[in-house]
Amino acid sequence: MLARRQRVLAPTYRLFYEEPLHIVRGEGVWLYDAEGRRYLDCYNNVPVVGHCHPRVVERLARQAGKLNTHTRYITDTPVELAEQLLATLPRELTSVTFTCSGSESNDLAVRISKVATGGTGFIVTEGAYHGTTETLSRMSPVTGVKTAPEVYTVPAPVGAQNVTEFAPRVRECIAQMKRAGVQPAALLVDTIFGSDGVASHPAGFLEPAVAEIRAAGGVFIADEVQPGFGRTGDAMWGFQRHGVVPDLVTMGKPMGNGHPVAALVARAEVMGEFAKEHRYFNTFGGNTVSCEVALAVLDVLQREKLVNNARVTGDYLKQGLLELASRHPAIHEVRGAGLFLGVQMEGRERTTRVVNDLRRESVLIGSAGRNADVLKIRPPLCFGRAEADIVLETLDSILRE
Amino acid sequence: MLARRQRVLAPTYRLFYEEPLHIVRGEGVWLYDAEGRRYLDCYNNVPVVGHCHPRVVERLARQAGKLNTHTRYITDTPVELAEQLLATLPRELTSVTFTCSGSESNDLAVRISKVATGGTGFIVTEGAYHGTTETLSRMSPVTGVKTAPEVYTVPAPVGAQNVTEFAPRVRECIAQMKRAGVQPAALLVDTIFGSDGVASHPAGFLEPAVAEIRAAGGVFIADEVQPGFGRTGDAMWGFQRHGVVPDLVTMGKPMGNGHPVAALVARAEVMGEFAKEHRYFNTFGGNTVSCEVALAVLDVLQREKLVNNARVTGDYLKQGLLELASRHPAIHEVRGAGLFLGVQMEGRERTTRVVNDLRRESVLIGSAGRNADVLKIRPPLCFGRAEADIVLETLDSILRE
Repeated sequence: MLARRQRVLAPTYRLFYEEPLHIVRGEGVWLYDAEGRRYLDCYNNVPVVGHCHPRVVERLARQAGKLNTHTRYITDTPVELAEQLLATLPRELTSVTFTCSGSESNDLAVRISKVATGGTGFIVTEGAYHGTTETLSRMSPVTGVKTAPEVYTVPAPVGAQNVTEFAPRVRECIAQMKRAGVQPAALLVDTIFGSDGVASHPAGFLEPAVAEIRAAGGVFIADEVQPGFGRTGDAMWGFQRHGVVPDLVTMGKPMGNGHPVAALVARAEVMGEFAKEHRYFNTFGGNTVSCEVALAVLDVLQREKLVNNARVTGDYLKQGLLELASRHPAIHEVRGAGLFLGVQMEGRERTTRVVNDLRRESVLIGSAGRNADVLKIRPPLCFGRAEADIVLETLDSILRE
Repeated sequence: MLARRQRVLAPTYRLFYEEPLHIVRGEGVWLYDAEGRRYLDCYNNVPVVGHCHPRVVERLARQAGKLNTHTRYITDTPVELAEQLLATLPRELTSVTFTCSGSESNDLAVRISKVATGGTGFIVTEGAYHGTTETLSRMSPVTGVKTAPEVYTVPAPVGAQNVTEFAPRVRECIAQMKRAGVQPAALLVDTIFGSDGVASHPAGFLEPAVAEIRAAGGVFIADEVQPGFGRTGDAMWGFQRHGVVPDLVTMGKPMGNGHPVAALVARAEVMGEFAKEHRYFNTFGGNTVSCEVALAVLDVLQREKLVNNARVTGDYLKQGLLELASRHPAIHEVRGAGLFLGVQMEGRERTTRVVNDLRRESVLIGSAGRNADVLKIRPPLCFGRAEADIVLETLDSILRE
């Protein structure tokens, strides 16, 4: 299958691990390979309620058999989904647009922020990742693509000093923009700073940075594609722990538990400014099936109390990792909230070694950060203590070797 | 439901028709509203094998219950799908990338063509539509968004004179670019020119234009999002009737019969140039479920001989429309191939009137063209003679009034 794959898929594709996995089945927190061996999934944030959740699959199948059409007719599920999403968000956010991916949502947020502010300047972090489009690839320095001239970068708030200096650096970026004659459009950040290596504490550090961009006439775009839907354990959205209300919120990955569905939510005045001159139609965005799937995911999150579980299991796992850090000098720091944890390791090679050793022991995680020296732990939210213990024991034994 | 919708969905949304439809169910060529009234769907090209095709729904449900994961593991369905897509394409096209939407595919084609050619200049038609991203919105003049400075437009090959002058105008655009110091990257066209009002005959007119862009160091991107998957009746892809082999082919809308799946296929040397410095990972692109759905669509297209049906029913419908044109002076011209037909009407208001009158008679079509004066007929490919007769009779009676 690997040889066939390499023959027909583009050379831009990359596989995980020194020994790539051939996966044929998923269930809950487990993935199964072609030989029937099972792997504990501690990496995939997309299947947020667990792989192939029966309730989500059932509602997907039922709606797909009834109606799949677009938003140029009145249909029920996009309206119901928009209502339910808004109920989880601060009341200032009132206007929903559906897309197919986090990239489409972030790209649209960029378009809207430019029109709404009249600006063209963006501030992102040095290890940011916001998507695959032409525009977003030039706002995603972690990919190695050169940032666009009007995109300015600040060090991510990873580590105590960078947290303290985050807002002052945003202010300095704005000053640089103004000296270059660039009008600020937006501060765009992933509110858990996943690709930067995870930054979560102390809660509240975003607030002064958001105040800076607003004072300069720009807006704040919260990229919730990774932290959203309860992963941080304390709230549905990553920005909520920082006590700020964004102007634009983008969401994607876990929204359909793997089904391609994503959204953008905006303040009325920001969206209204854009709507004066622009329409937006996305063929698949807001189709009846994708919206039904997203409704099913919200339903399961609530029924199974998965946000609370993210907090409880996440706290347990983080404590365990801190205990490992006290015994293994290769671990420098443990960051994160809920079931989005980053373990700062000593060096890229060591990190790669650990990721591959864990895979051989049937535990799947990944790495993150500009130097790829952070273990990224981000399992389905139905992850329990038993699974956390497997991670901790396996990591402990690997670090002891 | 309309009031609820307007409260939560962004003001950028638009509904079809003076009296919007509230649709609750779809089956084959029929859509049903909340009162149980049925409408003949002559507009939607996305449900290519018919609304809610049971075979497609069944394979979607089965795969969604088994595994939904991404391309960083080896999985079977993206490889099988890539192999089957390549089997429908000329042998020069060898390299497949999966995305979620036609917009993502076209946006990626733009990125690749810039890197592969070193150019930044694009040529599109005056009524082009290529997608919703920041980059593509500025290559889609039909939306009213101002084109980017490096995007040049030519009149679409609609009408005999514009067909003859298409290639010379592309050459003139290239000369303008060179005078402005812009290196050409690509000629990007929808090979059926849907948003321009449909252009299909005489087959072959694309060839000299493609020769011009290549002679200038640029590539040819065939946007197959609308004509692809057999709609034109004579082949799987719109470019095939013009005797050209593109450098990049993008596809989307009908690929999953409504499920968000899309792709880009490239010549090895073009993709290889991009891959030297760039990777491309799309979270949902190429996931196991989306690929299974697309495999099911290809299977049904073949089993039910729908490409042949598009030709046979399309020819019958076109003959009927030509007969109507001979009796109704409001019809100026009938264009198109297979089940992608454009009826050039007298003026925008008359066209809008006909579209709304047809809707009241339970026949759904839309309008197209820079002046919105073309009736766009683009039904599911399972459309038969009986349905074509309904369209012809209803249109006849409306035009007689």
